[in-house]
Amino acid sequence: MTKIKVGVVGATGAVGQRFAQLLAGHPYFDLVVLTGSERSAGKKYKEAARWILPQPMPDWLGEMTIQPTSTDLDCQLFFSALPTQLAHEWESKLAAAGYGVFSNAGAHRMDQDVPLLIPEVNPEHLDLLTHQQRTRGWERGFIVTNPNCTSIPMTIALAPLQARFGVEAVIATSMQALSGAGYPGVPSLDAVDNVIPFIAESEEIKMNNEPNKMLGQSNGQRVEGAGITVSAHCNRVPVSDGHLVTVSVRFKDKPSIGDILQAWQTWEPLPQKLNLPSAPTPPLVVRTEDNRPQPRLDRDAGGGMATSVGRLRPCPVLDVRFVALAHNTIRGAAGGSILNAELMFAQGMLDVFKEDAARVSVPT
Amino acid sequence: MTKIKVGVVGATGAVGQRFAQLLAGHPYFDLVVLTGSERSAGKKYKEAARWILPQPMPDWLGEMTIQPTSTDLDCQLFFSALPTQLAHEWESKLAAAGYGVFSNAGAHRMDQDVPLLIPEVNPEHLDLLTHQQRTRGWERGFIVTNPNCTSIPMTIALAPLQARFGVEAVIATSMQALSGAGYPGVPSLDAVDNVIPFIAESEEIKMNNEPNKMLGQSNGQRVEGAGITVSAHCNRVPVSDGHLVTVSVRFKDKPSIGDILQAWQTWEPLPQKLNLPSAPTPPLVVRTEDNRPQPRLDRDAGGGMATSVGRLRPCPVLDVRFVALAHNTIRGAAGGSILNAELMFAQGMLDVFKEDAARVSVPT
Amino acid sequence: MTKIKVGVVGATGAVGQRFAQLLAGHPYFDLVVLTGSERSAGKKYKEAARWILPQPMPDWLGEMTIQPTSTDLDCQLFFSALPTQLAHEWESKLAAAGYGVFSNAGAHRMDQDVPLLIPEVNPEHLDLLTHQQRTRGWERGFIVTNPNCTSIPMTIALAPLQARFGVEAVIATSMQALSGAGYPGVPSLDAVDNVIPFIAESEEIKMNNEPNKMLGQSNGQRVEGAGITVSAHCNRVPVSDGHLVTVSVRFKDKPSIGDILQAWQTWEPLPQKLNLPSAPTPPLVVRTEDNRPQPRLDRDAGGGMATSVGRLRPCPVLDVRFVALAHNTIRGAAGGSILNAELMFAQGMLDVFKEDAARVSVPT
Amino acid sequence: MTKIKVGVVGATGAVGQRFAQLLAGHPYFDLVVLTGSERSAGKKYKEAARWILPQPMPDWLGEMTIQPTSTDLDCQLFFSALPTQLAHEWESKLAAAGYGVFSNAGAHRMDQDVPLLIPEVNPEHLDLLTHQQRTRGWERGFIVTNPNCTSIPMTIALAPLQARFGVEAVIATSMQALSGAGYPGVPSLDAVDNVIPFIAESEEIKMNNEPNKMLGQSNGQRVEGAGITVSAHCNRVPVSDGHLVTVSVRFKDKPSIGDILQAWQTWEPLPQKLNLPSAPTPPLVVRTEDNRPQPRLDRDAGGGMATSVGRLRPCPVLDVRFVALAHNTIRGAAGGSILNAELMFAQGMLDVFKEDAARVSVPT
Repeated sequence: MTKIKVGVVGATGAVGQRFAQLLAGHPYFDLVVLTGSERSAGKKYKEAARWILPQPMPDWLGEMTIQPTSTDLDCQLFFSALPTQLAHEWESKLAAAGYGVFSNAGAHRMDQDVPLLIPEVNPEHLDLLTHQQRTRGWERGFIVTNPNCTSIPMTIALAPLQARFGVEAVIATSMQALSGAGYPGVPSLDAVDNVIPFIAESEEIKMNNEPNKMLGQSNGQRVEGAGITVSAHCNRVPVSDGHLVTVSVRFKDKPSIGDILQAWQTWEPLPQKLNLPSAPTPPLVVRTEDNRPQPRLDRDAGGGMATSVGRLRPCPVLDVRFVALAHNTIRGAAGGSILNAELMFAQGMLDVFKEDAARVSVPT
Repeated sequence: MTKIKVGVVGATGAVGQRFAQLLAGHPYFDLVVLTGSERSAGKKYKEAARWILPQPMPDWLGEMTIQPTSTDLDCQLFFSALPTQLAHEWESKLAAAGYGVFSNAGAHRMDQDVPLLIPEVNPEHLDLLTHQQRTRGWERGFIVTNPNCTSIPMTIALAPLQARFGVEAVIATSMQALSGAGYPGVPSLDAVDNVIPFIAESEEIKMNNEPNKMLGQSNGQRVEGAGITVSAHCNRVPVSDGHLVTVSVRFKDKPSIGDILQAWQTWEPLPQKLNLPSAPTPPLVVRTEDNRPQPRLDRDAGGGMATSVGRLRPCPVLDVRFVALAHNTIRGAAGGSILNAELMFAQGMLDVFKEDAARVSVPT
Repeated sequence: MTKIKVGVVGATGAVGQRFAQLLAGHPYFDLVVLTGSERSAGKKYKEAARWILPQPMPDWLGEMTIQPTSTDLDCQLFFSALPTQLAHEWESKLAAAGYGVFSNAGAHRMDQDVPLLIPEVNPEHLDLLTHQQRTRGWERGFIVTNPNCTSIPMTIALAPLQARFGVEAVIATSMQALSGAGYPGVPSLDAVDNVIPFIAESEEIKMNNEPNKMLGQSNGQRVEGAGITVSAHCNRVPVSDGHLVTVSVRFKDKPSIGDILQAWQTWEPLPQKLNLPSAPTPPLVVRTEDNRPQPRLDRDAGGGMATSVGRLRPCPVLDVRFVALAHNTIRGAAGGSILNAELMFAQGMLDVFKEDAARVSVPT
Repeated sequence: MTKIKVGVVGATGAVGQRFAQLLAGHPYFDLVVLTGSERSAGKKYKEAARWILPQPMPDWLGEMTIQPTSTDLDCQLFFSALPTQLAHEWESKLAAAGYGVFSNAGAHRMDQDVPLLIPEVNPEHLDLLTHQQRTRGWERGFIVTNPNCTSIPMTIALAPLQARFGVEAVIATSMQALSGAGYPGVPSLDAVDNVIPFIAESEEIKMNNEPNKMLGQSNGQRVEGAGITVSAHCNRVPVSDGHLVTVSVRFKDKPSIGDILQAWQTWEPLPQKLNLPSAPTPPLVVRTEDNRPQPRLDRDAGGGMATSVGRLRPCPVLDVRFVALAHNTIRGAAGGSILNAELMFAQGMLDVFKEDAARVSVPT
């Protein structure tokens, strides 16, 4: 199988590190480019990156040289771990230059013509890309985004329920891991023996907007939102990885607890049918113990790509309540973005990059 | 002023330690009796108790001798830090023997004739005591209880709102401190780098029942519940002290955010008017920063007796949402129970114990 | 290759869980027996074990049935995760019944005829086994032990230095992980925001005795100790896994810092030459950054089997100082014991168990 | 009693906050000036300072206005919480302008004519001040410093032993709290579930130089070092406050364990004899439990000003080993500096500031 050459833009940060780690030995993609800030460019990765992942940095990765972000890099696709502002500046530029861009940044998530994608949830939203390319005058470049790390576990847990029972309203309280704030991120004096009941102005807004876009309907030009009202309380807890969310839901059709369970347990979304390399089986791990999921025990389920749900029970105020958990830097960031690329690869949507391995715009 | 002699039953455990610490130099009460299990009885406190509080054990306390729990102890009142089962066994026995019992245990909280008391919230529920004594045939002994540590911050925050706007429904997610589980309590391998989305079967039930009793109306014989539907998600987080709760509320009358703020800021409950020694001023600390209250920074407000609220904002699903915090072993346990006793003292309801300092039933 | 059937005695505890996890898919050994207490026997592993490892319990493992420990179990070797007292009771009994016993317990470590083995350090001490079997009248059963988890990183770091420069004295301060105390182990209120400067009476004694036995000379009947004086300060820190030790050393021959570095970097011990499945390459990871090794970043080096050293510099009081780290439940317990078995397997010392796969003593 | 007007320079940082907190209601000193950076100047303290102490910020403090650091401020003494570089720039300037400066910074600690002072250890070193003022041409201004927070517990524990038995060599391993790095300081991802075996190049050097200066002899012009060789291993652990140090010591005269104990227990240093307001009684808390001192339980002994020692036992390599603990931002920083000022006040060395409450250099 011909692999496609890929790069990571913003490779030295927390999410960039995960991209690099997860792309090691990938069956579809060959990681050949790492970009970083001017300060990092020209250095070996091991000198430029302050590695913060619990597993050691692979040797081959440490020896790669950081390049400055540009439109003249020798690869076809980019995974973007850029901070928002730089994402605004660079992602369109890269797409215009003919690169496919899979972005973890928030910059373009809510753009009408940009898919906000969880392959298990809304693979059909990729139909926005034709419109995106036409509108923006991009020949084969594109931007596909993945959602905020806190939206993920809730949206994945709701997806099979929305389809069958119609979600009307959600009240959710997140307990978010420290790695979600990047590095250096949260000062340790704020984290040890403490909870911070605030992430950022925008976090609770994203918790409303993103699920509505992902659970909504695309008409090929834009997505009609799902019409769910989401009230989120976002909190930071002293946990390294793994966002836990308590969720209370009101449904249009009033499903029983058994109905919910069955919807979860029989859910067979596309990435699992396609057997994508990063697709966890099952996509939803339904825990029946009374004290699960827990970040330390469940964040690595499915290689960090599975969402775990548990404590399913009636909610006396809305209809049903439960707890959901996902690994925030794997499923919730780099891993989610890679799964997006795998979905497009498996559906032949990246074939143009295979056929023409040497990009036209790269000077010869 | 004549002080009343008091004892702590179950004095060696986590809550017992707080009782002893908070009663040091108390203006109304003289701590003269500490009781413990058979294994502890006869030992000095410093030998029997595995001290877990961050402040050092006072020397005088360490030198006191633990006595076996009995109805022949030389004091008038007891603060009970007994575990539920022992509370069932002993508290009625002590009340029947003529002692006033202020209990932190769950055993009698929901008994119809037992006040479940937060002095700022429902001081008038002490009118149940006459009925309690008559019904149970107790001459001057009685039982007064304080609520579960997790009910407290939410109930205190709701009290001034319930009075004015009528609370209909609440969805709450708690992030509870480790000390709430006592000692040894939660194993460290479950606590470090983790959240446990479960406390106990009964915890979420208490979060519904207790606020309803406290915010309800007493007719002198029983309390008519407040009719509030509470849906609680209870979680354990790696914090030593301080329970944080996110709260979404639906009101009968639809108050504005300004109405809520005003109700909180102008609240003047009885303990503060009576200037009770343990009553914090103000009872509610309203934080306006976007990231407060936090356990580490706010649990000790008002000497651990104040409740802090913050992040007040509209809830798109119910009406209003906010965050509340209280110190779980001070306001939420020992300190709350002592404030109950102070309220009765200041209202003359303990005068019988002053006049007759030597209890009749104590053998001479 | 014929695999040997193995069992884990004491399989439900913290170390037992690691044994089971690390034996999954092992090329030499087939895990077919799990034993547990009377309370656990008969239950499925997933019902009997309170799983505490950060990776999910494998499904096949969860479905295995716990058996009561006995001398009639259908396997050839046992890995023992028994607590000391049960190890005293059972390990000799199992060896006498013809099983090879690889023990992580402290019970027999200092027995004269029992190898205390780190394959990289003293593989030649296996010559004690002939004497052990003769003396104890065991036909083919035997006991081989691995050292205390805190002795490991220091002993491995000293092994190549002892050979060349002669170690005379060591002052070491350990910062030990919570998992070293098993489960429930250390109460969270003692662990969060705290250090406990004490492990157990015996811990600091082991830190002297065990390295001396391992670095000593075997004459086939007993080991002549290495004559090193070790002064250990043992502490518990709020870290889940990974024991870190600061070490100051006095040498007979006074090596330079460069000499030490070279001895570490050129060390090629037997397990790596034999390419044993669990042998990490390199056995010693020499870190040159000023702030490494760290438990969170380095404990998983070499799959948790490598020892990391760093901060090598002169000691103004003794001669040289450095920091060493190893994963306490992998290299320091289950993984170390499995490597012991691999060493014997690769040297043909377990062939007797292969030839006679059905043990004589198993009733047919 | 006439109080002396004091200010805190660098008042908004971690140590500045402690100074302000500990000076509240001080019997000798009246806190009237707070200085900060240009960004802070003109703001109320509550707006300028990001409060990180576990106790709430006092209201009166929050309302004080930050001034820019200058030589025209209306007070007589300054407590300096400046970072090193600013301390180099400002402290001499302030002393030259006639202010007494008590500095927590490292800038002048090792200056020959500057006392590095722990009142219990070397009060006689204040005799350097006459020489300091003469040499530097300062009329009544001066600089007195307190040592690095990690040197403190070890130096205090050694002081009574040095006097009687002569300390020759020390090997120490510190486990230092996060607050020692200030705010934002250590990123939480480096702190949670981790130990960092490194503080800064200079930290281990200070651990040698500072105790030698403090335990040495002053001849009125300079201090002859104590000639002790100190080898320090400095580590950061996930503890909020309280530096714990394991210590192995070699003595000239070989004291028994009993001799050491007696020296500690009968130690009566000057601040306790003078009954200084911040002097803890006893200065050394000798713990006899096998697992004390612990940061969480012992850092607040003596209001955070006492040093706790424990685990006293023979060291097989040197002579004796033990563990010492002190609160790093109280005794180890702000509280230590205030005690220095109290010592001078009680000895009449600050009378010049009392008599002339209005400083000459202040424009009228």
